[in-house]
Amino acid sequence: MIHYLAKKSTMANVAMLGTGFIGDFYTYSLHGKRNRDRVVAVWSRDEERGKAFARKHGIPKWTTSMEKAIGDSSVDLVVIALPNHLHKEAVLQSVRAGKGVLCTKPLGRNANEALIMLEAVEKAGVFHGYLEDLVYTPKTLKALDAVKNGAVGKVIWARSRETHPGPHSDWFWTKEISGGGVLLDMGCHCIEIARNYIGKDIRPVEVLCWADTLVKPIEAEDNALGYVRYENGAVGQFEVSWSFRGGMDLRDEVMGTEGTIWVNNFLRTGFEIFTAAGKQGYVAEKAESEKGWIFPVGDEVVELGYTDMFHDMFTAWEGNFSCRETFYDGYVVNEIMDACYRSAQSKKWEPVTLHSWRGKEKAEPILSLEEYDANYWLIKKETMPDGSKKLILKEKKSGTIVQKIV
Amino acid sequence: MIHYLAKKSTMANVAMLGTGFIGDFYTYSLHGKRNRDRVVAVWSRDEERGKAFARKHGIPKWTTSMEKAIGDSSVDLVVIALPNHLHKEAVLQSVRAGKGVLCTKPLGRNANEALIMLEAVEKAGVFHGYLEDLVYTPKTLKALDAVKNGAVGKVIWARSRETHPGPHSDWFWTKEISGGGVLLDMGCHCIEIARNYIGKDIRPVEVLCWADTLVKPIEAEDNALGYVRYENGAVGQFEVSWSFRGGMDLRDEVMGTEGTIWVNNFLRTGFEIFTAAGKQGYVAEKAESEKGWIFPVGDEVVELGYTDMFHDMFTAWEGNFSCRETFYDGYVVNEIMDACYRSAQSKKWEPVTLHSWRGKEKAEPILSLEEYDANYWLIKKETMPDGSKKLILKEKKSGTIVQKIV
Amino acid sequence: MIHYLAKKSTMANVAMLGTGFIGDFYTYSLHGKRNRDRVVAVWSRDEERGKAFARKHGIPKWTTSMEKAIGDSSVDLVVIALPNHLHKEAVLQSVRAGKGVLCTKPLGRNANEALIMLEAVEKAGVFHGYLEDLVYTPKTLKALDAVKNGAVGKVIWARSRETHPGPHSDWFWTKEISGGGVLLDMGCHCIEIARNYIGKDIRPVEVLCWADTLVKPIEAEDNALGYVRYENGAVGQFEVSWSFRGGMDLRDEVMGTEGTIWVNNFLRTGFEIFTAAGKQGYVAEKAESEKGWIFPVGDEVVELGYTDMFHDMFTAWEGNFSCRETFYDGYVVNEIMDACYRSAQSKKWEPVTLHSWRGKEKAEPILSLEEYDANYWLIKKETMPDGSKKLILKEKKSGTIVQKIV
Amino acid sequence: MIHYLAKKSTMANVAMLGTGFIGDFYTYSLHGKRNRDRVVAVWSRDEERGKAFARKHGIPKWTTSMEKAIGDSSVDLVVIALPNHLHKEAVLQSVRAGKGVLCTKPLGRNANEALIMLEAVEKAGVFHGYLEDLVYTPKTLKALDAVKNGAVGKVIWARSRETHPGPHSDWFWTKEISGGGVLLDMGCHCIEIARNYIGKDIRPVEVLCWADTLVKPIEAEDNALGYVRYENGAVGQFEVSWSFRGGMDLRDEVMGTEGTIWVNNFLRTGFEIFTAAGKQGYVAEKAESEKGWIFPVGDEVVELGYTDMFHDMFTAWEGNFSCRETFYDGYVVNEIMDACYRSAQSKKWEPVTLHSWRGKEKAEPILSLEEYDANYWLIKKETMPDGSKKLILKEKKSGTIVQKIV
Repeated sequence: MIHYLAKKSTMANVAMLGTGFIGDFYTYSLHGKRNRDRVVAVWSRDEERGKAFARKHGIPKWTTSMEKAIGDSSVDLVVIALPNHLHKEAVLQSVRAGKGVLCTKPLGRNANEALIMLEAVEKAGVFHGYLEDLVYTPKTLKALDAVKNGAVGKVIWARSRETHPGPHSDWFWTKEISGGGVLLDMGCHCIEIARNYIGKDIRPVEVLCWADTLVKPIEAEDNALGYVRYENGAVGQFEVSWSFRGGMDLRDEVMGTEGTIWVNNFLRTGFEIFTAAGKQGYVAEKAESEKGWIFPVGDEVVELGYTDMFHDMFTAWEGNFSCRETFYDGYVVNEIMDACYRSAQSKKWEPVTLHSWRGKEKAEPILSLEEYDANYWLIKKETMPDGSKKLILKEKKSGTIVQKIV
Repeated sequence: MIHYLAKKSTMANVAMLGTGFIGDFYTYSLHGKRNRDRVVAVWSRDEERGKAFARKHGIPKWTTSMEKAIGDSSVDLVVIALPNHLHKEAVLQSVRAGKGVLCTKPLGRNANEALIMLEAVEKAGVFHGYLEDLVYTPKTLKALDAVKNGAVGKVIWARSRETHPGPHSDWFWTKEISGGGVLLDMGCHCIEIARNYIGKDIRPVEVLCWADTLVKPIEAEDNALGYVRYENGAVGQFEVSWSFRGGMDLRDEVMGTEGTIWVNNFLRTGFEIFTAAGKQGYVAEKAESEKGWIFPVGDEVVELGYTDMFHDMFTAWEGNFSCRETFYDGYVVNEIMDACYRSAQSKKWEPVTLHSWRGKEKAEPILSLEEYDANYWLIKKETMPDGSKKLILKEKKSGTIVQKIV
Repeated sequence: MIHYLAKKSTMANVAMLGTGFIGDFYTYSLHGKRNRDRVVAVWSRDEERGKAFARKHGIPKWTTSMEKAIGDSSVDLVVIALPNHLHKEAVLQSVRAGKGVLCTKPLGRNANEALIMLEAVEKAGVFHGYLEDLVYTPKTLKALDAVKNGAVGKVIWARSRETHPGPHSDWFWTKEISGGGVLLDMGCHCIEIARNYIGKDIRPVEVLCWADTLVKPIEAEDNALGYVRYENGAVGQFEVSWSFRGGMDLRDEVMGTEGTIWVNNFLRTGFEIFTAAGKQGYVAEKAESEKGWIFPVGDEVVELGYTDMFHDMFTAWEGNFSCRETFYDGYVVNEIMDACYRSAQSKKWEPVTLHSWRGKEKAEPILSLEEYDANYWLIKKETMPDGSKKLILKEKKSGTIVQKIV
Repeated sequence: MIHYLAKKSTMANVAMLGTGFIGDFYTYSLHGKRNRDRVVAVWSRDEERGKAFARKHGIPKWTTSMEKAIGDSSVDLVVIALPNHLHKEAVLQSVRAGKGVLCTKPLGRNANEALIMLEAVEKAGVFHGYLEDLVYTPKTLKALDAVKNGAVGKVIWARSRETHPGPHSDWFWTKEISGGGVLLDMGCHCIEIARNYIGKDIRPVEVLCWADTLVKPIEAEDNALGYVRYENGAVGQFEVSWSFRGGMDLRDEVMGTEGTIWVNNFLRTGFEIFTAAGKQGYVAEKAESEKGWIFPVGDEVVELGYTDMFHDMFTAWEGNFSCRETFYDGYVVNEIMDACYRSAQSKKWEPVTLHSWRGKEKAEPILSLEEYDANYWLIKKETMPDGSKKLILKEKKSGTIVQKIV
């Protein structure tokens, strides 16, 4: 367990920009359980929606003026829960008002937008957080700790998969607003998860991406796959789809030289219900069926990382230090995705271009020779059913590979 | 999701009695994440332990006088995290001070102690909560909602299992202090979980229990099994052990006439790590091995129900209503366990004696005849591989059972 | 892997009695894959059903005379796949013909019938096998080997669960024919599985059983639960239901002093399909739904133990030795079930009466004191998060329990 | 269940070439259970190894002359269980002797070798089978049936993963003998599994492959990943590693327009053992640890597909028809792998060159527009928590995407 001991009982007052699905989710997280933070103002371009949202969540103020919401004197931090094409403007307004700002994922529709936002917050010196919730799921946080403690040795590969039957709102499906398809929408999660496992200080060097519109009659891609190669040779693998059937599949896998990690955040978490009752016996959101076997999660807000994300960000804001996921991380992810789109076109590996690199200049290689004796390197050791050990060895001088039972 | 909207931002100030394993856990829960409640005073019979605990958790006051801890003017609620033999005295002191009181499980070492505590809090009219955390795991809360919504029809059986390799502290193993063995220590969880699924308003009628000391050289039982029969015919089944190997196993299963629920709270929750690194690559508490496959949970405090438990209790206290698990529930569980101990001795079913029953006077039976047509009851309908339906029918008049393909 | 090397290529010629669901399954097993055994004659009381069955399975002879089927000169072994009330007569006819006989489960409708059959085959000296397939599932065979090799230490508890939404044919539901309800139908499996784990040479001493008719409008019990206590203190726990929803649930769990075994034979075996296609996209038998998540097994005949069961029995018959499950085992199971029915009536533990006991006269106790040093017994050793070891010790002289960090 | 009814009781007599790990496995499969086929001659270049193998498996003849083994008059079929560099010669010898021939995977060290073998068997008209066991696991066979029946709609993506800590024998690690690293050794499985799911009649068009030597001090790749794009747009994804920790991981996943399939063939199959006993309590092969949680499979020979593979091949041979996996399939896989090696070098998509294509000339596209009404295409339909349906629609004329609640 990571125990944060917040000794002083400060709280954060938030302006929520946006009243859609994700604004709802964020507000539930912020007002949930015994949480001490509050949304004090909400902005919606639609008066009625803003009012309804405020009433539903017990928010004292609502407004159709983004400037007023952000500039309200009671507001400490701005949370951007808007469609992608509005992120930049909202960030810039927050910066102008000198307010800290937390922005939902992806940061920009492309790296250019993201860079503008990054430079703006850094130049102004305001607090900034990149709302990449899936890096904060309780399992992921514990798994990242295990990696840090050396439990799996050096990470050589991390797979992150996010698939479901398609997003809730029309704007996702419209490329001008969203900036892209499933790669932009969900690839950003997978890329950042793998980057966390492999090491944020290891430079992402190049990417290979396949993207296609296979099932849905849309302009953008509805399926995408790809690899991000890091400087030390490790590979981050992402798989995203808007045409998966069966619910929402959020799984990560990590291979290290000394171990393995398997995380299932949503569809198989030790909670299984069979119901023959149908609609009248309502069980869970996001299940694709009303009858049969259904797989809910316990507390969705916790399991999807919202609770730990806001905890980290508000505690960092209070304490005046940097949170786990900043606009710089959002920018790096946007650069990687831009390279992915180039690769999907060029059909070859494309370099990741980074305007600023803040990690290690030189990464250590993964491979480390293990000596067996003066003459041999050890390739593999295996216990046989009879208890003997079988060794695969490589003669140092000749390079010849031999086996040996000891 | 259950969304509690705490509109006013009140907070609870707590006196923590006890600085052991469970006191630690409770305090972590209360001070965790962005929680607004605080432990403001801690009591330990040992000056040094109290001081160390206070320093570790940022608690302003510590004392070796229970009276002072409870009576401190800043204290709203008392949390009892003490060995079983001290519960009664701590409750009575809290009542004398007019403070609300939350007591860890089991409420008493026996029903008699529990009844005294129940009568004391009710007579004094103070707020009281029974800290039965496992009824509050996020999965259990959602499963109970599903049951309430009719997703599984009428519950006919609920199995609850809690096993691990034995408790952490010496006092558990000493019968005079604890009041019993694994049945008292963990059976209380299982019995109350099953009771929640079957319905707290359905009277527990009789119990059958086997208890034995099979593995550990102790006086009390280290393994126990049993059934609690409810008035409507449903059965709650419990399985507890202090000699289980492989970690901590917390699983519940529910059979209903229309569905099934399987909850795994701890050992298989979609999080799996293989480590060959051993001690230097520390992964998780309570795993029985340092190498090999290990199965942590995400956020232990959440998954074990502590977060939702305190949320419910403090919100109920603020709102002046009753929480999910009160001293009455603790008392009922103690009565059921007393009957279990009698049954383990008498080797037969033993009635559950309840000094006061607050549920339904008469429970509806589970069985409800489904009519097929004027002449037949339907016993079963099955779809065959060829798509036809096979019916098993019972002739109303004769009682003869026949099959029919339609 | 257990590798049987059948050096001589003999084969078994079988008379199949019965053409229902189980006769079908047995014949598929015998004729499946590259199997060398054949059904050469089939008996059905109905000419047409026998003929159709013969044609479907490529069986050369069919008859409505049981005597002719059994007595056919090409027949080596008789397989009884008949409703329970016909077992005794079919066994006695086989014995009269001097043929080896394999009988489906349960052996008798009660211990009395079973004893008559046991005495008949033994007196005549014919080969006999008790077709208890679930003891032969590949997982169970490997788990039993692991137990034998000491992988889990001494077994203290074995749970076996078999539940589904009710049997296929009308005769199961009619007590005069079947001899009982779900306890007789499926409890026989669970009881024998647990007996195998605990040790067939350990005497089953007494039983406790709850049985009720909760959901189905029938005379016999549709749900039953119970414990079988063995002489060394170990407990076999069974759970059977004809009102389970969600498919067929076949799970076993074993607790040993040094380990744990979990076997899932059917509903969660690493094979999961989500289908939105419905009837037109047929997936699997026994799934309770046509759409949604469905959990087939790979090869049903293998996974349910039929392949290994006939392999063991025919190989034993060829080699002139005894198979794993004989009529004696069937008899013991019937005695245990008779005691269960008595217990369900008397509501107390009932002794298991055995006309002949062929196991150990005296079982070793499970408990074995582990010495810590000259003064203390060791109760428990636990590694703490900081790497220290916490010991729970019992002073030999005083019996006082203390904890110690080392 | 697929029920093959072999009406005539023929049997196959086999010459086994090779006495290593895979020769052993094949022979166990052929002699296992009540199987009717026999190995009648074995070849090893080493007299003593051949003799020991023959004795162990009850094989009447052994020889160091491959010609004699193949040419033996009792031999019907030759099974090649040899290192990769010997496949071609053994196939050509079998062809010269006019014997049917079954060859282990991969067929050749490259497509050129495979093509020579393919042309040889086809020109001679001898029976040929490609021993791709993992396409024959019982779960895979049933899953392929489900796909064929339309249960998952059109397949758009199939992932196949095979990883373990490295092969048993020295020759695998030596590129001149094996022809390549983990891609050749295990990629062949994954590629053919995905090809079966997507459709063997759909042309594999191009591949993208990453391969690296990350962990082991060897010349060939120890990790490889890649995509095979089929003509209809579907993608087969493979993941192979010789540096995975935790056992052997064999998993497949399929996404279809109407459903999902998840197959786990080895490491999580509903069989879990915790053992604290260590070496003295032997549990299972291929587990990477002696203590802790271990995950065996039931019957390894069945679960890995050997039983069903030989069943299919020998039954096809008897019946004079073609088996599921022929040398043509082996050749296609080799071509795909050759393209993968080219891609790993060129760092871009590489076309798959096929000397002969025997599938469809033109594949149907996956995308099929679903009409909502005269003006709109349907993109997505979702049931909301309140029971309403939310539609995402695309206006036919304008291409504008809108949402609508109904």
